[in-house]
Amino acid sequence: MGETIEKVSIIISKGSLEGVYPGLIMANGARSEGIEANLFFTFFGLDAIHKERLEHLKVAAVGNPGMHMASLIGVLPGMSAIATHMMEKKMEEHDIPGVAEFVEMIADSGCGLYACKASVELFGFSDEDFIEQVEDTITVGEFYGKAAGGEIIFT
Amino acid sequence: MGETIEKVSIIISKGSLEGVYPGLIMANGARSEGIEANLFFTFFGLDAIHKERLEHLKVAAVGNPGMHMASLIGVLPGMSAIATHMMEKKMEEHDIPGVAEFVEMIADSGCGLYACKASVELFGFSDEDFIEQVEDTITVGEFYGKAAGGEIIFT
Amino acid sequence: MGETIEKVSIIISKGSLEGVYPGLIMANGARSEGIEANLFFTFFGLDAIHKERLEHLKVAAVGNPGMHMASLIGVLPGMSAIATHMMEKKMEEHDIPGVAEFVEMIADSGCGLYACKASVELFGFSDEDFIEQVEDTITVGEFYGKAAGGEIIFT
Repeated sequence: MGETIEKVSIIISKGSLEGVYPGLIMANGARSEGIEANLFFTFFGLDAIHKERLEHLKVAAVGNPGMHMASLIGVLPGMSAIATHMMEKKMEEHDIPGVAEFVEMIADSGCGLYACKASVELFGFSDEDFIEQVEDTITVGEFYGKAAGGEIIFT
Repeated sequence: MGETIEKVSIIISKGSLEGVYPGLIMANGARSEGIEANLFFTFFGLDAIHKERLEHLKVAAVGNPGMHMASLIGVLPGMSAIATHMMEKKMEEHDIPGVAEFVEMIADSGCGLYACKASVELFGFSDEDFIEQVEDTITVGEFYGKAAGGEIIFT
Repeated sequence: MGETIEKVSIIISKGSLEGVYPGLIMANGARSEGIEANLFFTFFGLDAIHKERLEHLKVAAVGNPGMHMASLIGVLPGMSAIATHMMEKKMEEHDIPGVAEFVEMIADSGCGLYACKASVELFGFSDEDFIEQVEDTITVGEFYGKAAGGEIIFT
């Protein structure tokens, strides 16, 4: 075809570790290939750019049969913490940075970071709650404007 | 670039409140900008257009670390109801309509609503189970036909 | 418009039955219409092409209010198994093939199957863990190369 992707606009809507990483990995992969990239954080995904929360994202140990743990065990206090610790250790072994470092790295590579206005209002957050790399809080309409001419990936 | 998005085809596949709203908000945002929009309901997402179910969608209080509740507490009976009540109250405060009203508003704005044929058969639903705004029950192939020339957003 | 979709690149990122099927159904629907299709398995979605795991995918009975079961009941041991059995039986009644057969069918129809390199390394898998229909393990950058000129659908 000779065609290439020129831009990706990735929406991160979940606040679990396994909900946040795919979007970050896809944004990072895009920038590595010289593809323009924007990250748009909405709903629980806002936690990934929230100063006090982004260091505390957890693996969802229940409701996740892929974890191969009995559901009953999954809900014992601490199981989510254990699964989180296991995943963080594995990621460290494979040189995958933690969320805070990864988001900063992606922003430094030229990816735009945006918060969803409706979600920010719903959760009662303000601009000061977010890391400095967040460029702006924008509406869905403004998101579509930025995404035009590229692929939209909702994660 | 001078480019704009002309059409979005949004798939809603989850039946939780936080699974349904992002798709509704993105469809509403598209119509507000004059962008053609179609909503396609599949799997548990069908609940959002099911006459008897759309008023009873709940927040998934477990398997959702973003809720910042211990998993153990999350599964006590009633916790999902409490989280649901909290989110509904917050949405009301911010003038975000309930699911029934929001879906109707979006349909009135000219967005097409479609049910996924395979899922409708799988769950044993019939056309009468759905709200009148649903235009048709269509196959995946027909969905691709409607989505051509725009962005596909799977939520 | 006269436009048609020429290619879809579908990412499967979840390992639950209800997380895997939408992507398979959309890939199958694409091939039925003569649309080029690629399936890219990442994170827990890798279970769907893992020789020893693809026969054992389960419905996530908790964290899934769409299942219409009280959360407390959802976590009793065996409830996920019961929900899985119910869904498998329903799918059989509607001639929807099981995951193993469905993936093989889709590959035979000309859809490319790819594993995500970063996830394969993270989980410590190797090529021998995957069914023979998997063509290659590729990076995110290579994925974007294959996806160019089509729609990206993240499920």
